[in-house]
Amino acid sequence: MLRYDMGEGELRNWVIGEDAFNVRDLAKYETIMSLGNGYMGVRSSTEESYPRETRNCFVAGTFNISGASEVTELPNLADVTELNIRLDGEDFHLEKGKIEEYSRTLNLRSGELVRRVSWRNERGNRFEIIFRRFVSLHNKHLLGMRVEVTPCTAAADISIRSGINGQVTNSGAQHFAEGDKRIYDKTIIQYAAATTESNILAVTHCHHRFLVDDSEAAAEPSLSIERRKVSTDYRFRVDAGQTLVFEKIANIHTSLDLEHVRKEAAELCEDSLAELREEAAKGYGKLLQDSTGAWREKWAAMDIEIESLREFDQLAIRFAQYHLVLMAPAHDNRFGIAAKGLTGEGYKGHSFWDTEIFIQPYFLFTDPGMARKLVEYRYHTLDGARRKAKENGYRGAMYPWESALTGDEVTPEWGPVDVVTGTPTRIWTGLIEQHITSDVAYGVWQYYLATGDQHLMDTKGYEIIMETATFWASRLTWNEGRTCYEIKDVIGPDEYKEHVDNNAYTNYMAHWNLLTAMTCYEKQQQDPSGWWMELRERLLLDNAYEDWKQKAENIYLPRPRETDRVIPQDDTYLDKKQIDLTKYRNQQEVALILKDYNMDQLSQIQVSKQGDVMVLFYLLEHCFSDEVKQANWKYYEPKTLHDSSLSMATHSILASDMGEAGLAYRLFGQAAEIDLGPNMKSSDQGIHTASIGGIWKCVVLGFGGVRALNGQLRIHPRLPEAWDSLSYPLYWQGDLLKIHITHDAVKVDKLTDLNASLRLSIAGQPYSLESKESITVSQAGRGNSVEQRS
Amino acid sequence: MLRYDMGEGELRNWVIGEDAFNVRDLAKYETIMSLGNGYMGVRSSTEESYPRETRNCFVAGTFNISGASEVTELPNLADVTELNIRLDGEDFHLEKGKIEEYSRTLNLRSGELVRRVSWRNERGNRFEIIFRRFVSLHNKHLLGMRVEVTPCTAAADISIRSGINGQVTNSGAQHFAEGDKRIYDKTIIQYAAATTESNILAVTHCHHRFLVDDSEAAAEPSLSIERRKVSTDYRFRVDAGQTLVFEKIANIHTSLDLEHVRKEAAELCEDSLAELREEAAKGYGKLLQDSTGAWREKWAAMDIEIESLREFDQLAIRFAQYHLVLMAPAHDNRFGIAAKGLTGEGYKGHSFWDTEIFIQPYFLFTDPGMARKLVEYRYHTLDGARRKAKENGYRGAMYPWESALTGDEVTPEWGPVDVVTGTPTRIWTGLIEQHITSDVAYGVWQYYLATGDQHLMDTKGYEIIMETATFWASRLTWNEGRTCYEIKDVIGPDEYKEHVDNNAYTNYMAHWNLLTAMTCYEKQQQDPSGWWMELRERLLLDNAYEDWKQKAENIYLPRPRETDRVIPQDDTYLDKKQIDLTKYRNQQEVALILKDYNMDQLSQIQVSKQGDVMVLFYLLEHCFSDEVKQANWKYYEPKTLHDSSLSMATHSILASDMGEAGLAYRLFGQAAEIDLGPNMKSSDQGIHTASIGGIWKCVVLGFGGVRALNGQLRIHPRLPEAWDSLSYPLYWQGDLLKIHITHDAVKVDKLTDLNASLRLSIAGQPYSLESKESITVSQAGRGNSVEQRS
Repeated sequence: MLRYDMGEGELRNWVIGEDAFNVRDLAKYETIMSLGNGYMGVRSSTEESYPRETRNCFVAGTFNISGASEVTELPNLADVTELNIRLDGEDFHLEKGKIEEYSRTLNLRSGELVRRVSWRNERGNRFEIIFRRFVSLHNKHLLGMRVEVTPCTAAADISIRSGINGQVTNSGAQHFAEGDKRIYDKTIIQYAAATTESNILAVTHCHHRFLVDDSEAAAEPSLSIERRKVSTDYRFRVDAGQTLVFEKIANIHTSLDLEHVRKEAAELCEDSLAELREEAAKGYGKLLQDSTGAWREKWAAMDIEIESLREFDQLAIRFAQYHLVLMAPAHDNRFGIAAKGLTGEGYKGHSFWDTEIFIQPYFLFTDPGMARKLVEYRYHTLDGARRKAKENGYRGAMYPWESALTGDEVTPEWGPVDVVTGTPTRIWTGLIEQHITSDVAYGVWQYYLATGDQHLMDTKGYEIIMETATFWASRLTWNEGRTCYEIKDVIGPDEYKEHVDNNAYTNYMAHWNLLTAMTCYEKQQQDPSGWWMELRERLLLDNAYEDWKQKAENIYLPRPRETDRVIPQDDTYLDKKQIDLTKYRNQQEVALILKDYNMDQLSQIQVSKQGDVMVLFYLLEHCFSDEVKQANWKYYEPKTLHDSSLSMATHSILASDMGEAGLAYRLFGQAAEIDLGPNMKSSDQGIHTASIGGIWKCVVLGFGGVRALNGQLRIHPRLPEAWDSLSYPLYWQGDLLKIHITHDAVKVDKLTDLNASLRLSIAGQPYSLESKESITVSQAGRGNSVEQRS
Repeated sequence: MLRYDMGEGELRNWVIGEDAFNVRDLAKYETIMSLGNGYMGVRSSTEESYPRETRNCFVAGTFNISGASEVTELPNLADVTELNIRLDGEDFHLEKGKIEEYSRTLNLRSGELVRRVSWRNERGNRFEIIFRRFVSLHNKHLLGMRVEVTPCTAAADISIRSGINGQVTNSGAQHFAEGDKRIYDKTIIQYAAATTESNILAVTHCHHRFLVDDSEAAAEPSLSIERRKVSTDYRFRVDAGQTLVFEKIANIHTSLDLEHVRKEAAELCEDSLAELREEAAKGYGKLLQDSTGAWREKWAAMDIEIESLREFDQLAIRFAQYHLVLMAPAHDNRFGIAAKGLTGEGYKGHSFWDTEIFIQPYFLFTDPGMARKLVEYRYHTLDGARRKAKENGYRGAMYPWESALTGDEVTPEWGPVDVVTGTPTRIWTGLIEQHITSDVAYGVWQYYLATGDQHLMDTKGYEIIMETATFWASRLTWNEGRTCYEIKDVIGPDEYKEHVDNNAYTNYMAHWNLLTAMTCYEKQQQDPSGWWMELRERLLLDNAYEDWKQKAENIYLPRPRETDRVIPQDDTYLDKKQIDLTKYRNQQEVALILKDYNMDQLSQIQVSKQGDVMVLFYLLEHCFSDEVKQANWKYYEPKTLHDSSLSMATHSILASDMGEAGLAYRLFGQAAEIDLGPNMKSSDQGIHTASIGGIWKCVVLGFGGVRALNGQLRIHPRLPEAWDSLSYPLYWQGDLLKIHITHDAVKVDKLTDLNASLRLSIAGQPYSLESKESITVSQAGRGNSVEQRS
């Protein structure tokens, strides 16, 4: 069973664990207990192998196309985690013999995974085995494993076969050519294989070391080189009560790494071998210590404290932040954040609108340097977006719905079964889910508002905003009857409605994109600098501006209906038939409705995958009145199945905004449970990175009440009943604030003084904070009492 | 444990079985219990999945290159055999719960595999499950499965997920692009995938049907289309004592099939779907009956009877014949017989000299039609052999050491670990193990001698013999010192000696090849027909003949040493150092010596993988005196590790020839145990087809004493002490003979009268048999008494 209470003392609310073993749940723990550092991600498959396992190791950015009719995807690298352990000649695994004690814990603070097993084999001999593993946050190339085996009742023959296995695939798709294999000094194994299309060389090493009762144990291994596989096999005789310790230190380097891009294959192999020799000499303990040190620094900078009897909430936000570290390629701005991070094959390592709308906010306010890299990533892919626009007959930049390395569209064409036809479902998102383009621009703008990073805007940000606006201007079609510009044939955030016209979210966000580009143009024109003149000329911005303006003035923006103030999600949604959705609203598994209806049928029903108009309210909250928000909530929420992991967080924040505290808190709980909850199937394909970002959003943007509208920081907390206090760090315009919220007061500490003075709104009132000042706004009673102190 | 005694009554000595389950032994049973029909081969992996399984399905001839630096190989097709069976919500497999009864049997007579399990789950509920499976010998495209599940102690929820899984690879190498997937009527699944390089479309279907207590059981399945995978999931509630029967009928067709080569993909899919609908409607029972009928005909034609208290010998010869049916692509002369047949990934589906020297003899004397196809296969690959000769700077046809579809060399460049350097071993056989070329010619000539098939010789056989002779003529190099032609830098049958000069086997067989070509030329010249004139001109045979003659007269043929009559295996073997080989002679696993020495080191030691000069004695027995044979046996055998599955049979036959009956019988037993014996690791990569052919050779050529020297049939039996009698069918010159041997007499029945009269030698004396005559030669006492009856 998944346990939240296995951290004791200092580690309270820092540990997720399981206290029993069940093969059915392997995928769940592989995902949620994944190890990583933004460079590599390793699913926490057990050392011993089971048929249902999914053993994955990904390195960010190493995209490859495995063959014809495939899209590019993040390939599964050669595995180092599998160990074949034989005790008295029998393979060790937990479906036979008798488990007497079992626990597996992931320590979120140190990043170490520990599994303890007390196990009796079929002959009745008891063994205690401890497995330890970490992926280093200190050296991004490094993974450490340690196994301690103690025969308790009788001396035992213990064999361990360990090596590197390049036979792994992505569900059958092979991304690597056969690798070069080598064993050095019978202790270091090297496997170097290149991707088949992108020709990225991945070099994996591992080093083996054995100790018996703390002394180096010498053993002559049996060596084996097979197809795509190298291993060594060691045998020991261990007395009862003695402990055999096995340490395996591995590293992975690729020719894509910035430090290696100019090297020949041989040099890359040599350098990474030298690194492994040096690192392995330090031993598991020291290497773990280095990594834990790096985690300590991370946590010092990002820790959020929730005081509450509901301790799960504290654990949940830490779990989210742990995974936010794992998913973010902080080392390289060429790579995005994948929908499943580096924790599973789901969505092939592609980036979606999730990045800007659900994940970027975390980094914006917690690690602005990482947020900048995400904007830079979109700039790196701008040319691909331009190609996509051109290929589709448009101008400017049309961002891909699914994005990999180049910005070209990489959405697959076919998906899961169509239950009616028995064929794969056609996936339309890559062609017509076009709101991603304004979402990217929105992300750039939010970054600018929160950081004031003018240099990034001048060199990259404005270009994205202008080119995306130009796309929208070319995308609109004139409707003579309605005398306005329309956006026809799209998919909005509610993906259960394909091929709709004038999706409210899409139209409003396109409008916003045009207006924002205009604002930027106007601002630069006032005091044009050299780079701007160059950009204006290169992108023909004077003409573009006139076009934007004319289009923005005449774009159709669906208004609330007279009768009930409901904004039509698209031209036809409100006319579709309504059905009883109880079965699907109470579903235990996601997308249950797709087992009864295919996409064509769903398109004819008033049912939503996620709140479409709701996301719009969240992003452009100042454009809609509370009354309209309430009316639409009432209309749409009961028709929403939350069949997207993105849905819950949006709804929770809106509920917070609308003062529906209980509902907001309940939805936060549901969002937190998408990965961390008791549903053992939800995370099979990998972590839901958008939902992980959403957990933080619920806490800091929802309950913490943080928003950055029109360049103004607003902190309007709505602390849940169940919480006593909430503290979080917050970066704003380069300065670090620490916010402490109780039911009585909001305290804002300005911890740095990059800006001499900071204007912000707290609980609805404007304040100004000077250098390293602290302010406490008391919420006791109705009004605010203010204590300001420098 | 592997059991030979599980066939009772009529099935006595027709059944191989196991009576207990152990995951360590999965590969052994997958291989030896493989199902197939020469068109397809399916390893007998259990329905439920285990980490150590190797689930393989091969279709003859569908070669593909999976990627850069790979050689062409037989790809693993999408799997239909795996079933996920859940009993009361838990995956069924045999490493948990309690096995109360267990047996698995392969019925060699019917080709049906049956597994019976009485199993108690962890809650104590007992289930009886019977798994049945066959690959049809009647319709080569068809595979049938049937599962009967009876909850014995309590009603149970039974779920079965079944479908087609294209995620399989060849040890990580993926040969197929993602396939087209479809589910028809929720009962038929289609998966159509093409190989990545050779573009062969493989279409797999399966049909599902359920019965409860003999009535059709309706169940609404849950459908699933994943990456490279389609399946349906059925759930049933079954009362205690009721039996749920599940039948899965599958078929496989490819665009390589002769009946489909001209079809578009859609037509191929339609036709094979129609076939499946029709076949599935018949049900498992009827389809099995059809297949068993085909097996009955086979056995009627090929059965060999051994009367002996050592019943294993009877089973062993049947086991060999069963696998000889499975390995032979009788449907298509474009394909060869692979070193592992269609039973494993080992040797990538390639054909070696095994075909002519170890396998063809069986078909020559038992199924001459199949033997003809093997010659035709070599003719199909003649152009590839010509290309290889040209690429290597020679003339004529240089056959590939490893052969696939075209006759181009496909030996991989790198093999298993070099224990000294820790790198893969360089494989030289493809370049320098050149005796294959005369082995192919030898096979053609043997076919001609045994069948008298002049038409095949005129259209194909002579061309092979001439072109191979021309290769040898161009291959020889003049040694001025020795004043003779030499063959330098080769590997002989003893592959532990690389880069040797004047390997006796190679030189003698090249000489034989030249002489045989000369004989053929001379014969045709006496009465030249049209086709000959054409061939003579096309291949410039007049010049070639002169060349052959001059080379044959001057080729160096190593003679027995004066001192001890030992023929030097090559120029340096006899001078190499000798070491104590006891450890390796007593080895439990093959090639143990390679764990201590690498190939360079082995080349410096007087140690042989298999008897090199011995094979020569076997093939050209008339060229060497008994005295020389004995002397060489004494010298070489103690230095031979029999690290090739080809070695034992050769030695057994020679021992028979030399009158060493006890030794011959012991070696036969060892040959039979290569796959069928208790070594649970020997067959992991697939069946040893050469050794399988060797079992028959020991019996019929060794103990049965059959030889076809100079166009004369010789039957000189050496019945083992342990046997009372031996009966076998024998084709000679198109006529079918039946031979019955006891310790007292040899009886030869001529069952057909294609040739009015047949001259043969029996037990050393010449006889002549007229139309449908029978002859009994009594061996009682010294002389022969003859009873001849028409």
